[in-house]
Amino acid sequence: GHGMSSQVSGMGGFTKWSEERVAALQVRLARKLGPEYVTQRPGPSGGPKLSYIEGWKVINLANEVFGFNGWSSTISSLTTDFIDVNKEGRASVNVTAIVRITLADGCWHEDVGCGQGENQRSKAAALDKAKKEAVTDATKRALKTFGNVLGLCLYDKSYTSEVVRMKVPQVKFNPRDLERRPEF
Amino acid sequence: GHGMSSQVSGMGGFTKWSEERVAALQVRLARKLGPEYVTQRPGPSGGPKLSYIEGWKVINLANEVFGFNGWSSTISSLTTDFIDVNKEGRASVNVTAIVRITLADGCWHEDVGCGQGENQRSKAAALDKAKKEAVTDATKRALKTFGNVLGLCLYDKSYTSEVVRMKVPQVKFNPRDLERRPEF
Amino acid sequence: GHGMSSQVSGMGGFTKWSEERVAALQVRLARKLGPEYVTQRPGPSGGPKLSYIEGWKVINLANEVFGFNGWSSTISSLTTDFIDVNKEGRASVNVTAIVRITLADGCWHEDVGCGQGENQRSKAAALDKAKKEAVTDATKRALKTFGNVLGLCLYDKSYTSEVVRMKVPQVKFNPRDLERRPEF
Amino acid sequence: GHGMSSQVSGMGGFTKWSEERVAALQVRLARKLGPEYVTQRPGPSGGPKLSYIEGWKVINLANEVFGFNGWSSTISSLTTDFIDVNKEGRASVNVTAIVRITLADGCWHEDVGCGQGENQRSKAAALDKAKKEAVTDATKRALKTFGNVLGLCLYDKSYTSEVVRMKVPQVKFNPRDLERRPEF
Amino acid sequence: GHGMSSQVSGMGGFTKWSEERVAALQVRLARKLGPEYVTQRPGPSGGPKLSYIEGWKVINLANEVFGFNGWSSTISSLTTDFIDVNKEGRASVNVTAIVRITLADGCWHEDVGCGQGENQRSKAAALDKAKKEAVTDATKRALKTFGNVLGLCLYDKSYTSEVVRMKVPQVKFNPRDLERRPEF
Amino acid sequence: GHGMSSQVSGMGGFTKWSEERVAALQVRLARKLGPEYVTQRPGPSGGPKLSYIEGWKVINLANEVFGFNGWSSTISSLTTDFIDVNKEGRASVNVTAIVRITLADGCWHEDVGCGQGENQRSKAAALDKAKKEAVTDATKRALKTFGNVLGLCLYDKSYTSEVVRMKVPQVKFNPRDLERRPEF
Amino acid sequence: GHGMSSQVSGMGGFTKWSEERVAALQVRLARKLGPEYVTQRPGPSGGPKLSYIEGWKVINLANEVFGFNGWSSTISSLTTDFIDVNKEGRASVNVTAIVRITLADGCWHEDVGCGQGENQRSKAAALDKAKKEAVTDATKRALKTFGNVLGLCLYDKSYTSEVVRMKVPQVKFNPRDLERRPEF
Amino acid sequence: GHGMSSQVSGMGGFTKWSEERVAALQVRLARKLGPEYVTQRPGPSGGPKLSYIEGWKVINLANEVFGFNGWSSTISSLTTDFIDVNKEGRASVNVTAIVRITLADGCWHEDVGCGQGENQRSKAAALDKAKKEAVTDATKRALKTFGNVLGLCLYDKSYTSEVVRMKVPQVKFNPRDLERRPEF
Amino acid sequence: GHGMSSQVSGMGGFTKWSEERVAALQVRLARKLGPEYVTQRPGPSGGPKLSYIEGWKVINLANEVFGFNGWSSTISSLTTDFIDVNKEGRASVNVTAIVRITLADGCWHEDVGCGQGENQRSKAAALDKAKKEAVTDATKRALKTFGNVLGLCLYDKSYTSEVVRMKVPQVKFNPRDLERRPEF
Amino acid sequence: GHGMSSQVSGMGGFTKWSEERVAALQVRLARKLGPEYVTQRPGPSGGPKLSYIEGWKVINLANEVFGFNGWSSTISSLTTDFIDVNKEGRASVNVTAIVRITLADGCWHEDVGCGQGENQRSKAAALDKAKKEAVTDATKRALKTFGNVLGLCLYDKSYTSEVVRMKVPQVKFNPRDLERRPEF
Amino acid sequence: GHGMSSQVSGMGGFTKWSEERVAALQVRLARKLGPEYVTQRPGPSGGPKLSYIEGWKVINLANEVFGFNGWSSTISSLTTDFIDVNKEGRASVNVTAIVRITLADGCWHEDVGCGQGENQRSKAAALDKAKKEAVTDATKRALKTFGNVLGLCLYDKSYTSEVVRMKVPQVKFNPRDLERRPEF
Repeated sequence: GHGMSSQVSGMGGFTKWSEERVAALQVRLARKLGPEYVTQRPGPSGGPKLSYIEGWKVINLANEVFGFNGWSSTISSLTTDFIDVNKEGRASVNVTAIVRITLADGCWHEDVGCGQGENQRSKAAALDKAKKEAVTDATKRALKTFGNVLGLCLYDKSYTSEVVRMKVPQVKFNPRDLERRPEF
Repeated sequence: GHGMSSQVSGMGGFTKWSEERVAALQVRLARKLGPEYVTQRPGPSGGPKLSYIEGWKVINLANEVFGFNGWSSTISSLTTDFIDVNKEGRASVNVTAIVRITLADGCWHEDVGCGQGENQRSKAAALDKAKKEAVTDATKRALKTFGNVLGLCLYDKSYTSEVVRMKVPQVKFNPRDLERRPEF
Repeated sequence: GHGMSSQVSGMGGFTKWSEERVAALQVRLARKLGPEYVTQRPGPSGGPKLSYIEGWKVINLANEVFGFNGWSSTISSLTTDFIDVNKEGRASVNVTAIVRITLADGCWHEDVGCGQGENQRSKAAALDKAKKEAVTDATKRALKTFGNVLGLCLYDKSYTSEVVRMKVPQVKFNPRDLERRPEF
Repeated sequence: GHGMSSQVSGMGGFTKWSEERVAALQVRLARKLGPEYVTQRPGPSGGPKLSYIEGWKVINLANEVFGFNGWSSTISSLTTDFIDVNKEGRASVNVTAIVRITLADGCWHEDVGCGQGENQRSKAAALDKAKKEAVTDATKRALKTFGNVLGLCLYDKSYTSEVVRMKVPQVKFNPRDLERRPEF
Repeated sequence: GHGMSSQVSGMGGFTKWSEERVAALQVRLARKLGPEYVTQRPGPSGGPKLSYIEGWKVINLANEVFGFNGWSSTISSLTTDFIDVNKEGRASVNVTAIVRITLADGCWHEDVGCGQGENQRSKAAALDKAKKEAVTDATKRALKTFGNVLGLCLYDKSYTSEVVRMKVPQVKFNPRDLERRPEF
Repeated sequence: GHGMSSQVSGMGGFTKWSEERVAALQVRLARKLGPEYVTQRPGPSGGPKLSYIEGWKVINLANEVFGFNGWSSTISSLTTDFIDVNKEGRASVNVTAIVRITLADGCWHEDVGCGQGENQRSKAAALDKAKKEAVTDATKRALKTFGNVLGLCLYDKSYTSEVVRMKVPQVKFNPRDLERRPEF
Repeated sequence: GHGMSSQVSGMGGFTKWSEERVAALQVRLARKLGPEYVTQRPGPSGGPKLSYIEGWKVINLANEVFGFNGWSSTISSLTTDFIDVNKEGRASVNVTAIVRITLADGCWHEDVGCGQGENQRSKAAALDKAKKEAVTDATKRALKTFGNVLGLCLYDKSYTSEVVRMKVPQVKFNPRDLERRPEF
Repeated sequence: GHGMSSQVSGMGGFTKWSEERVAALQVRLARKLGPEYVTQRPGPSGGPKLSYIEGWKVINLANEVFGFNGWSSTISSLTTDFIDVNKEGRASVNVTAIVRITLADGCWHEDVGCGQGENQRSKAAALDKAKKEAVTDATKRALKTFGNVLGLCLYDKSYTSEVVRMKVPQVKFNPRDLERRPEF
Repeated sequence: GHGMSSQVSGMGGFTKWSEERVAALQVRLARKLGPEYVTQRPGPSGGPKLSYIEGWKVINLANEVFGFNGWSSTISSLTTDFIDVNKEGRASVNVTAIVRITLADGCWHEDVGCGQGENQRSKAAALDKAKKEAVTDATKRALKTFGNVLGLCLYDKSYTSEVVRMKVPQVKFNPRDLERRPEF
Repeated sequence: GHGMSSQVSGMGGFTKWSEERVAALQVRLARKLGPEYVTQRPGPSGGPKLSYIEGWKVINLANEVFGFNGWSSTISSLTTDFIDVNKEGRASVNVTAIVRITLADGCWHEDVGCGQGENQRSKAAALDKAKKEAVTDATKRALKTFGNVLGLCLYDKSYTSEVVRMKVPQVKFNPRDLERRPEF
Repeated sequence: GHGMSSQVSGMGGFTKWSEERVAALQVRLARKLGPEYVTQRPGPSGGPKLSYIEGWKVINLANEVFGFNGWSSTISSLTTDFIDVNKEGRASVNVTAIVRITLADGCWHEDVGCGQGENQRSKAAALDKAKKEAVTDATKRALKTFGNVLGLCLYDKSYTSEVVRMKVPQVKFNPRDLERRPEF
């Protein structure tokens, strides 16, 4: 019988991490990010630049820090707050996501994220962009709660003002490191 | 008694992977994709080209990396955001899917995807296209969270600008490798 | 007491497959289909031909590959998106199904399928056709996730352009192989 | 205390079949049907004849193949899609059923079926006919998923074109084989 | 504490039947009915006569075959499809029942039945007749799935055309076999 | 702690009956009723007389056959189908009940019953009569499923035509057999 | 922790009665009531007198027969069918109750009862009377199912016509048997 | 972790009483009340006086008979049937409560009670009075089911006509028996 | 994993009190209150004074009698019956609370309480006062069910008429008994 | 597998406190508060001053008395009773919270609190203030139920009239006691 | 089988902390914050400055004090109270969050927070700001309940008036402490 279910599981099956692993993680999570992880964008209303980490970088970091099987993510909710279409037919939407990040060790954090599709050529384009942004935004905010190395340091302006002045070396592209089809 | 149920299962029955298998997976998941996995399409509004991996390739990769029985997929939700029909009777829709990928080891990721049917000859054609695209899109986004080899690397523009310049050799078609009916 | 229930089952009762069986399945699932499994139909809007596998063939393959008691199927949802009747009384509908395929080993895939009844002589005829098509379509899409041999290879255009050029031998009909009533 | 319940059962109580039984079933299920199981009706819109198996024959086959206590059936849903009454008071309805067939070994298949009451003398007559047809139709479609011997072979046109040309011998009626009241 | 409940029972408590009992049942269920079980009524619209078994006969058979405590019945749903009253105040209704028959051995079948109250003197009379007919009809259809002896044979026209020609002997009424009050 | 509940009970607590008791019950349940249990009333629309058993007699029989603690009854549903009041203020209602009879051994039967209040002096009088009749009617129909001795025999017209011709002796009233207050 | 709950209890905690106790109860429950338990009231519409037992007497009997801790009662539902107020402001209501009686041994019976407030001076007075009558009426009907001694005998007109002719002696009031405050 | 819950408790924790305690309770519960427990009020519409026990007296008796930790009470439902305000602004309401009394030994009784606020100076005053009366009334009715000593005897008019003629001695007030603050 | 929950707890964890503790509690709970616990207020409509105990005093008593960890309180429901604002903008509300008091030993009592905000300067002021009063009122009524010492004695008018005539000595305030910050 | 859940937890995991700890807590909770914990504000409508304890002080006390991991708090409900905006655009709201305080030992108290935003410059400002006040108010009321030291003493006017006359010494600020970043 | 679930987990899996760890935490949580944690902003309506701790600082502190795997956060609810758009198209919203902080040791606190988007250029911008502020605000309020070091001290005005006068040394930025890509 294949009695699996998407609703109820009798036992969680957590993999308790060793004290050594937890201690090493505690140290690593407290480290601030090098400049290769920090990107800047203009602040709202012409304010000072905002420093942030791109979504794929923080996911890579989570996979390195916790291991690919050390963390999980759940979309707890995904809500379209409004869909507005102006006279020219351009669409604006706001989408809100709540994402929960669960460590294999058993603890978790939930946080909220938003995505906007503003003045897009169609409702579809606005929704597509907004929904993905919202989930990525919420994922980043939930991950940052685990510590500096997953983005918490970016809220510390004294740090960001320094790190963005550091030079980021060019990463060399090495074709030999790529995953290739066996026949190649 | 065949008391199976689609709602509640007492025990999950996870197959904990060995440390060796996890370590090997950790390395493989971090590898970036060779050029035979990368496709390009025009960016929105005439912007730069976008690099992506086709759905069937990433499913093949998931089957190779985790094993065919090492991962599962659930459509957590499938929502038609709108169905619009213009005066000429052409239909446009947007569909949003949330897909959860669960590893046999016990962790999981959920992500969102969208599909569009734009200016299609009928509502049915638009829905058919949009629903399938949405599920495939969400599957790809959820899989990519496990690491570079399942598509995360494609968000790294410094990598994609290099990989798309590599040549992809022709794969030779070998009829002897095919699954055939026993009588042939 | 016959306390069975359609809602909750305490234990799933998975039959874990041996490592040997899993390894053999891994190889077989990766094999592409011979030409006797591939059918072609015209693409939408006069585009190139589409290659596909008929529903009964892929169900037969699933029964061969996993064993008849190695896989299960659930209609997770079945939705009529719209029913339109034009002035001549001809009916058009679109139906969407989500089907989950569960292996006896414990993993599963869900996918979506659609069925259309377009310009049919009655609503009933349109619904009958659309509902069955939708379930078959979703079943095929969910099965294909397990690998090439269940249809994933058909998304690879370099393969399909080759395989459709191969000749399919005629299968000989042998009355002695048939299931007959004992009295015959 | 007679604490039975129609909703929740703690244990399913599957009867795992022996390897021998499963192997024999695997072979038998793959066999195609003799001509005594195949009936023909005109195709829709004057198209070619359709081959099918009558409901009572496939239920008899399921009882023979799996044993009377080897399979179960559940009406997962039963929906009246519409009830239309024309000016002459004649009624047309379409009913959709989803049926799940569960083997005592633990696996299952769900499929959809439809029934029509077209231009019947009353709504009641139309509903009665349509509901029963829908459940029988869905039962047949779910059973056929287990293999050729339960009807899957009928989708293979190269087979049906042959089998319908075979002669079906007359079954002799033997009164001595009947179930009789003990007093007779 | 009398903590019984109509909703949830922790254990089903199936009584697994011995292999011998199952084998004997398999044979008996496959036997067709003698003429004393078969009744005929006119077919719809002047068509050929329909053969059927009366409800009380099939319940008696189920009690003999499975034992009085070997099977259970549940009304899964009971729906009044419509209540129509014409100008003369005569009422017509259609009622649909789904009944589940569960064997003590653990398997089950669900099927649908309908009952009509047509042109009755009152809504009450129509509902009373229709509801009881619907439940009896569904019970018969669910029971017949277990095999010929519970009515499946009646769908086989080559059999019914023969059996209705057999003579049914008169059953002798024996007052000494009756259940009597002890004081008589 | 008095943690009792009307909703969920962890264990059903069936009292499995011995094989001897079951065999004796099987014989007794198959016996037809003596004339002291059979009452007649006029059939609908001037048709032939209907034979039935009064509710209190069948409850007494159930208590004798199964023992007072051998069976239980549940009102699964109780529905007022309509309440009509005519111009003279006289009320007519129809009530439908579904009753489940559960044996201590673990099996059960559900059946439907109806009660009418026709042309009663008030809605209250009509409802009171109809509701009680409906529950009693459903109880009788569910009990009769267990066999002839609980009323199934009354559907057999060849039996009823005989039994109603038998004479029923007068039961002698014996005051010494009565339950009396201890002080009397 | 005082984790009690009104909804779910893990175990029912039935007190299985000894065979001796059950046998004695079986005999006692079958005894008919002495005249001190039987009251008469006029039948509806000037019909013959109805014999009944007052509520407090049957509750006293239940406490004697089963023991005060041998039975429990639950109001499964309590419904106000209608509240009508006429022009003079006098109120009429009908209330329906379903009561379940559960024996400590584990079996139970549910039955329905009604209460009327007819032409009362206020809605409140009508509701108060009707609700209490309904619960008492349902309690009596559920209790009577256990046998003659709890009221089933009153449905037997040949018995009631005799018993109401018996003389009921006067019960002597003895102040020394009363429960008194310790200080008296 | 303080995982307590107001909804579900795994085990009830009943304290089964000893046979001796049960036997003593059986005797005590059957005793009728002395005159110090019986109060009289005018009957409705000028009818004969009604005898009743005040709420606090029966609660005191329950605490003495079962022990303070031997019984529990639950408000199963509390419903405001109507709120009427007349032209002078005076308010009338009726409130219905269902209360369940549970013994520590595991059995229970539920009963209904009503409270009225008639012609009160405000809705608030009417509701306050009616709600408390309803709960107290239901508590008394549920408690009385356990036997004479908790009020059942008051329904026996031959008893009440005697007991109300007995003299009730004055209880002496003794300040030394009071609970005092330690500092007094 | 911190899988706590506000809805379901597997085990209640009752602390069964020793027989000695229960016996001592039984005696103490039966004691009536000294005058220092009794307050008086005018009765409604100029009636006789009402005696009551202030909320904080009865909570202190509960903490002394059961121990601070011997009892718990739950707000089972909190309902605003109405909010009325008159022409001058003054607000009147009535709020009803149901509170359950649970002893660590496992038994409980629920009771109802009301709070009024009458002719208050604002809706907010009226609600604030009414809600707190309602909860306190219900808490007091539920606690009083455990016996005289928690307020039940105040319903006994012969007692209250005596106790309110006793003199209450002045409690001396002793600063040395206060909880102070360590630094003081 | 990280199968955690916000809804259901199998076991509460209470940490039963030792008898010594409970006895010490019993004494400490009974102590009244020193003047450094008591603040005064004007009473409503110019009435006498009200004495209260600020929220942060009572939370500090709870952390000291029970330990930081000895108590938990849950917002059982949070309701906005109304939002009114006057003509000048100033906003008034009332918010009601129910908070449950749970001790690690297993007992709990729930109480209600209200917060007002009266005549605020915006709805947002009014809601922000009211919601936080409501939760803090309910937390304080629930905590005070545990005894004097958590605020119950403040309801005793004879105590508050004394304590507010005591002098509160100035607490010296000592920078060396502060939590500092390691680098300082 | 990967039977994980977002709804129900059989066991919480709390990691009970050692007595030493709890004692150390008790002391640390009671420490007040150094000036490097305290920020000031203008009070509402020109009132005195408010002292607060920025969200990222208190999250860092929670990670240091409890360990990164010692606490979890859940968004219990997230509600948009209103969205107002003025004539100039500027948007104002208020959002309310309830956040629960759970320690790995098993206790938890829930608190409420609000976020405002006032007079923002678009609804999207207002919602984005308000939702994130609300979650951060609620997280801070829930964390502060654990003691001074997580922000409770900031409610003590005598402390804040002192600490804001202390000088905060400049933190030196050290590039060598950063997390860097391995290739750098």
